[in-house]
Amino acid sequence: MSFRDALADAAARVAAELDALLPLAGTPEDQVVEAMRYACLNGGKRMRPFFVIETARLFGVDGRSALRAAAAVEMLHCYSLVHDDLPAMDDDDLRRGQPTVHRRFDEATAILAGDALLTQAFAVVADPDVHADPAVRCELVARLAKAAGARGMVGGQMLDLLAEHRDLDIAAITRLQRMKTGCLIAFSCEAGAILGKAAPRLRQALAAYAHDVGLAFQIADDLLDVESTAAATGKAVAKDAARGKASFVAVLGVERARAQAGLLVEQACAHLEPFEGRAALLEAAARFVVERSA
Amino acid sequence: MSFRDALADAAARVAAELDALLPLAGTPEDQVVEAMRYACLNGGKRMRPFFVIETARLFGVDGRSALRAAAAVEMLHCYSLVHDDLPAMDDDDLRRGQPTVHRRFDEATAILAGDALLTQAFAVVADPDVHADPAVRCELVARLAKAAGARGMVGGQMLDLLAEHRDLDIAAITRLQRMKTGCLIAFSCEAGAILGKAAPRLRQALAAYAHDVGLAFQIADDLLDVESTAAATGKAVAKDAARGKASFVAVLGVERARAQAGLLVEQACAHLEPFEGRAALLEAAARFVVERSA
Repeated sequence: MSFRDALADAAARVAAELDALLPLAGTPEDQVVEAMRYACLNGGKRMRPFFVIETARLFGVDGRSALRAAAAVEMLHCYSLVHDDLPAMDDDDLRRGQPTVHRRFDEATAILAGDALLTQAFAVVADPDVHADPAVRCELVARLAKAAGARGMVGGQMLDLLAEHRDLDIAAITRLQRMKTGCLIAFSCEAGAILGKAAPRLRQALAAYAHDVGLAFQIADDLLDVESTAAATGKAVAKDAARGKASFVAVLGVERARAQAGLLVEQACAHLEPFEGRAALLEAAARFVVERSA
Repeated sequence: MSFRDALADAAARVAAELDALLPLAGTPEDQVVEAMRYACLNGGKRMRPFFVIETARLFGVDGRSALRAAAAVEMLHCYSLVHDDLPAMDDDDLRRGQPTVHRRFDEATAILAGDALLTQAFAVVADPDVHADPAVRCELVARLAKAAGARGMVGGQMLDLLAEHRDLDIAAITRLQRMKTGCLIAFSCEAGAILGKAAPRLRQALAAYAHDVGLAFQIADDLLDVESTAAATGKAVAKDAARGKASFVAVLGVERARAQAGLLVEQACAHLEPFEGRAALLEAAARFVVERSA
């Protein structure tokens, strides 16, 4: 299967899984569940779920297990987008071409929907359907919480907000982006290894791959913000510069940023060498990350 | 030890545990950790941790385990207060006599601090320090997520916000409050039974106790809102009526509400009968819940 077919297939299966995991009950509080569904079932690329599914496949993990864990990561990712879009945060009106959750519903519902998605992500990975071994499930919970918390994704968003008022050097921007985007991508790649009880050597190879892909992903995002249109990306563009936000492109310039992203992708693929050609889809994913147009 | 001494002792130990679990690292994103600490280390009564510690004691659970689980529940409770106080939600400026987190910091930091506290609560219960058996830790994660999610606490807050525009009958108000407050109190009582691998009969007794205590707690809150002063409660009062919120007191009136709370406390204590007198502190806690002045 080609990478693009594999990504589309994973996206369809993750969307169906999210649909099944977020049922409407016909009860009065369903507004928050509708908002959760709206936030998740929006045609996202599902890159993070793809990383979970493909890394799990390397270790022969049952497909149902991997899909469950993938859905949990996507719930957590979608919560972060809902909260990041809030007026008090990045104040975005559009996400994937549609009104953001607080525009479609209201701010209170958006805050609660994000809270509930974050909560349900942990419920999903703690559930026996993810893996028969509770030690594996606990490790998923612990690692996911670390990736998402104050020393991971939330800390990265805090840094991003503080960066509006500060000049950051390349080391500070790298740290910010590793926390904000990289930690959850790293968890997505690590999840397959945890589910498959992988040897430390292979787990480390995937961590190194994820580290480079995560940074390349962010540089590509910065390039899209500068070069793309709202029509292509489905969200507001040129916002980083307008808000004086530190970005790789602002510090490196477009050409050097693009070269750096390419270098990171090559490095990422090199880390997959221990898989002896069985990780071709992960190599393709790394290349896609910097070539995508949205 | 008297109930008040036991509660004060538990509160002090939980505060020390929270202090240890939320360290400042001296890194630029520490603002969010400062806000987490501000939200948690504020002299709260620590009723939910008390329920965890005292129910755990009934089953001979190691005190360190119970204290860890208790701290996780309190983190989750504090997150819910931070988000509920936001301008888009209940819009409160005061909490326990101090500025709320978004007033002391800013809205974005408050949203992130809440997110990070919720996340860390799951990290704490998934950690081996809570219990050696990963199946026990997974059950804590799953039950905590259920209590806190869209069909629990978050759903209750959604109902509460929707209730500003609707007349609720006593059944709807009871359901709302069971979800908003009752579910986390029920988890707090259940946590001790999970940690102690309690027999189903005893676990059910605690669930029934928690159910009645939770409702009594909420009725007492409604009565405080009507009868108390901001100086005594440390937060704004008479807000329910001002916002047209459905409350037990609005529907039942003060006298019947007080009688109902008293009845629930007696019922709660009756459910503790299988513990043959070893749960005297939980009986005292039930009485305290309706007699407290803040």
